[in-house]
Amino acid sequence: MSPLDDLSPIAACCPALTARADIEPYARDWSGRYAHPPHAVLRPGSTAEVAAALRACAAAGFAVVPAGGRTGLCGGAVPRADGPPAVVLSLERMNRIRAVDARDFTITVDAGCTVRAVQEAAAAVDRLFPLSFGAEGTAQIGGALSTNAGGIRTIRWGNARDLVLGLEVVLPDGRVLDDLRRVRKDNTGYALRHLFIGAEGTLGVITGAALKLAPALRARETAFLAVPSPAAALALLDRLASNGAELIGFELIGRWPLELVRRHAPRARLPFALESPWYVLLELGTAAAADLRTPLEAALAAAIEAGEAGEAVIAESEEQRAALWYLREIMPECNRAEAPSVSADTSVPVSAVPAFLAEVEAALAARWPEGKLIAVGHAGDGNVHIALQAPRGTPREAWHRNAEAIEDMVNRIAVAHGGSFSAEHGIGQSKRHAMAALRDPVALDLMRTIKAALDPRGLMNPGKMLP
Amino acid sequence: MSPLDDLSPIAACCPALTARADIEPYARDWSGRYAHPPHAVLRPGSTAEVAAALRACAAAGFAVVPAGGRTGLCGGAVPRADGPPAVVLSLERMNRIRAVDARDFTITVDAGCTVRAVQEAAAAVDRLFPLSFGAEGTAQIGGALSTNAGGIRTIRWGNARDLVLGLEVVLPDGRVLDDLRRVRKDNTGYALRHLFIGAEGTLGVITGAALKLAPALRARETAFLAVPSPAAALALLDRLASNGAELIGFELIGRWPLELVRRHAPRARLPFALESPWYVLLELGTAAAADLRTPLEAALAAAIEAGEAGEAVIAESEEQRAALWYLREIMPECNRAEAPSVSADTSVPVSAVPAFLAEVEAALAARWPEGKLIAVGHAGDGNVHIALQAPRGTPREAWHRNAEAIEDMVNRIAVAHGGSFSAEHGIGQSKRHAMAALRDPVALDLMRTIKAALDPRGLMNPGKMLP
Repeated sequence: MSPLDDLSPIAACCPALTARADIEPYARDWSGRYAHPPHAVLRPGSTAEVAAALRACAAAGFAVVPAGGRTGLCGGAVPRADGPPAVVLSLERMNRIRAVDARDFTITVDAGCTVRAVQEAAAAVDRLFPLSFGAEGTAQIGGALSTNAGGIRTIRWGNARDLVLGLEVVLPDGRVLDDLRRVRKDNTGYALRHLFIGAEGTLGVITGAALKLAPALRARETAFLAVPSPAAALALLDRLASNGAELIGFELIGRWPLELVRRHAPRARLPFALESPWYVLLELGTAAAADLRTPLEAALAAAIEAGEAGEAVIAESEEQRAALWYLREIMPECNRAEAPSVSADTSVPVSAVPAFLAEVEAALAARWPEGKLIAVGHAGDGNVHIALQAPRGTPREAWHRNAEAIEDMVNRIAVAHGGSFSAEHGIGQSKRHAMAALRDPVALDLMRTIKAALDPRGLMNPGKMLP
Repeated sequence: MSPLDDLSPIAACCPALTARADIEPYARDWSGRYAHPPHAVLRPGSTAEVAAALRACAAAGFAVVPAGGRTGLCGGAVPRADGPPAVVLSLERMNRIRAVDARDFTITVDAGCTVRAVQEAAAAVDRLFPLSFGAEGTAQIGGALSTNAGGIRTIRWGNARDLVLGLEVVLPDGRVLDDLRRVRKDNTGYALRHLFIGAEGTLGVITGAALKLAPALRARETAFLAVPSPAAALALLDRLASNGAELIGFELIGRWPLELVRRHAPRARLPFALESPWYVLLELGTAAAADLRTPLEAALAAAIEAGEAGEAVIAESEEQRAALWYLREIMPECNRAEAPSVSADTSVPVSAVPAFLAEVEAALAARWPEGKLIAVGHAGDGNVHIALQAPRGTPREAWHRNAEAIEDMVNRIAVAHGGSFSAEHGIGQSKRHAMAALRDPVALDLMRTIKAALDPRGLMNPGKMLP
C-alpha cells in the first residue's frame, strides 16, 4: 500500500486539504529556504480533532508537522523530503479566545490565535499581552510558544516561555495533557509545560495556552539617538537599568540598515542625517500615570554629557512614536530590496555585545570584504542579529553558497563569548548543523533521551531541531 | 555483602561522615515529620567530587538523597526506610560565589550557597537577588531551585525558576551537564534547566546556577492595614496592580495568627488593636529614586473611601518597616508556641482567593469545630497558606492523626478552584498521596516516563515526589 492509500483514515479525522494547489502554501515558510509539499494538510477545529489526527497518523505511520502562521525562518514547519511521509497539521482553525480574566491578569487561548489577536483581546480589558515581534499579525501563539519567540519586549517581560502559566498539549499517541493552569505558584511535579515550549513540535502539539497579562501601559516615551559605539549604547543602557528606568525596549541599529531604510522606504522619515556609526531606539513604559519624560530627558542629557550619545529625538506624539518604530519594523523589507543577505540569530551576555560586534565585523570583513554588515537587534537582552549582505545585483543563490560559512563564523564568535547561536528563531532545519557542532554533547544526549521517551516512533516533526 | 560493606568506595570519593552522631542531623528536615538516618553523608567540595560520588553510588546500588540546608517542610531531603540503602549528598561545602556581573545583572554560584549569601553578594554590587523567604539564612540555593521556592517577592519577580538563566547538573550516571549559560535569549533545543528545577533531586544533582539579578531598590514603602474581607483585600490589590503600582509584596493575614503573635512574641508591636477579621501587609519598591509614598497614600485613601480598608499605617523609618515585617516573619514560631497545627500549601487564581477561603473556613469548621483557622500568605499571587490549629494543650500526635484528612479537604477545595495543592514547598514525601489523588493521570504518566528515561535505575532520591 502506498502512503497515499493510507491517507483516507487520516483525512477522515478532521477537515483536510489534499489537492495540490491547496497544499502548496503549506510547503514553505517565510525563510523561502525550504520547500517540500506534505501529503495532506489537516485542519482540525478542536483539541479532540487534533487528538484523533495524531492517533490516526501514529496508526498509519505518518509524520506530523505542526504549523501555525508559518512565519518561521528556520524551516521548522516545513515538511522534509527524507523520513516518513508527512502531513502538515495546521492549527489555523483553532482560533478562539477561550477566556480572559482581567482580575487575574490571565488569558486562555487556542493555539491558532494570532499573537495580535491575543494582544487585542487583552487590550479590550485594559491589559497588555507583552509578546511583540514583526510577524505578530500572522504568527500564531502555538508557533510562538513552540519556538519560544522573543522580540522587542523581552528586556521587560521575558521570552514567550516566561508568559506561560499552563498548556494543553496533544501527545504523539493522541492523549491530551490538560495542564491549562492559571496559578502563579505550582510545584506539583516536573514543569511539563517547559518541555513543550521551544520544542518546535517535536514532542507533541500545543493546542491551548493560559498566558500571563500585564496591566495596560498608561505612559510611554520613545527616543531615537545617535551613539558613537556599541559600548556607548551599553553604558546608556546600564545608566537607565541601574536607576530603575521603566525600559520596555532597547534596540541597537547599525548605520547600514538605516541607510537601506532611507533608500527603499519612501514613507520613512529619518529624524536626522546618518552621520554616526550606531543608533539606539529605546522605549520606556509603565502602567502608572507617571512622568517618564523628565527622567528620560535627564538620562539622555547625562549620556550626551558623558559622550555616550550624540543627536537625540524624543517622540512628541503617537504619530512620531509610530514613525520611529516604523524605521525598525521596515528594515527586513528594505534589506531584501537592496540585495540578498545571510542572517544569524545570536545572543551574548549583554556586557559582551561590544566585543562580539567588533570581532564579528573584523572576521566577516576579512573573509568577505565585498559584504556589508547588517547589525540590528535587541541589544537590551544581548540579542543582536547579524546579517552579511551581498553587493547589489548579486543573485541570491550565489550569495547563499556562503550561508553555512557565514553563519558558522558568527555562531562560533557568539559561543566563544558565552552566547547562543539560536536566540529567538529556533533551530528548525537551518541550525541543526550548528546544534551538532556547537551544543554540549551531554545536553544533546539528554535531548535525544527525552525525544525517544516521549515520541518513541519519531513521528513528531522529524528531522527538526535535533541533529 | 551488606550495604555497609559497599560504603568504602563511596566514602573514598569525597569527605564523608559515617559516625552515628555525625549523621544524625541529616536524618530529618524542618517539618520534624520524617526521620530516617542515611548510611553515610557525603560532603563533596566540587562538581567533580559530586560526579565521582554519583558514579560510585550507581556502581554500588546506593540511593542518593541530595540535601541543602534541610529547611524543607515535606521530607524531600530525608532518606526513606524503604527502597535501596541511601546516602545523603550534602552540598554544604560547595558554597562559592563563582562570579558576579553587575553589568549583566547575573550571578553564578555553587549550589551550596545559602540564599542569603547570594542576596549579600548581589547587594555588594548594588544589585538585588529577589528570592526571599523565611528560611533564607539557612536554605541553600540548590535546594531552593530543586523545590522551585516561592516566598514574598513572587508577585514581582516570579518563583525561583524564573530567576535561573543556566544550571550545572550532575546526572545520575555521573556525567556533568554544563549548561551554566548567562544569556537572556537561548533557543538551542529543549529547556533542560526547567526539568531539574522543581524536580527535588529526582533527576540529578544541581551543583551550580547562573541567576538573574535586578537593580537594587532605591525607594520602598511598607503599609499595614485592616481590611474587612479577603474580597476587599483583592479589590485593593487590583486597584494597585492595574495602576502600575510597584508592588513587591502583598500578604493577606487572618486575625488569629496576629493574635498569636500578640500572645507569644514579646518584641512584636502591633500598630493598632485587632478589631478586623483580616489584615494586609504590602510593600512597594523600585530601583528608581521615585516617590512611592504619594501614590501609596492616594491608593490607601481611595481604598478607605471605597470601604476596602480600615485603619492603616505606613512605615516611617527602616525600623518601623522591620517591625511590620517582623509580625509576618515571627508567625510560624508563634503558631508553634500556641498549639500544634496541620498546614497546607495551596494556591488558586488570585480572583478565587475569597471564595476559596470562605469554603475552606466553612468546611474545616464543620468537621473540626474545635480547630482554629490560620490563614496567612502571599495573596498577591494566590498563595494563601491554610493551617488548622488544635486547641491549646492538644498533643501533637493526637492532632496530627487528622493531618491527611485536613490536607485533603483543603487541597480538594483548591483544586476545584483551578488551584494547586503544592504552591511553593514541593511534594517530597508528604504530598505524594495528593499527587496520586489529584494530579492529572496523563501528567503523572509523562512524569514517570521522564523519570525512567533520565534515572532508569531509580537511585535519585527514590520515594519522593512521584507517587
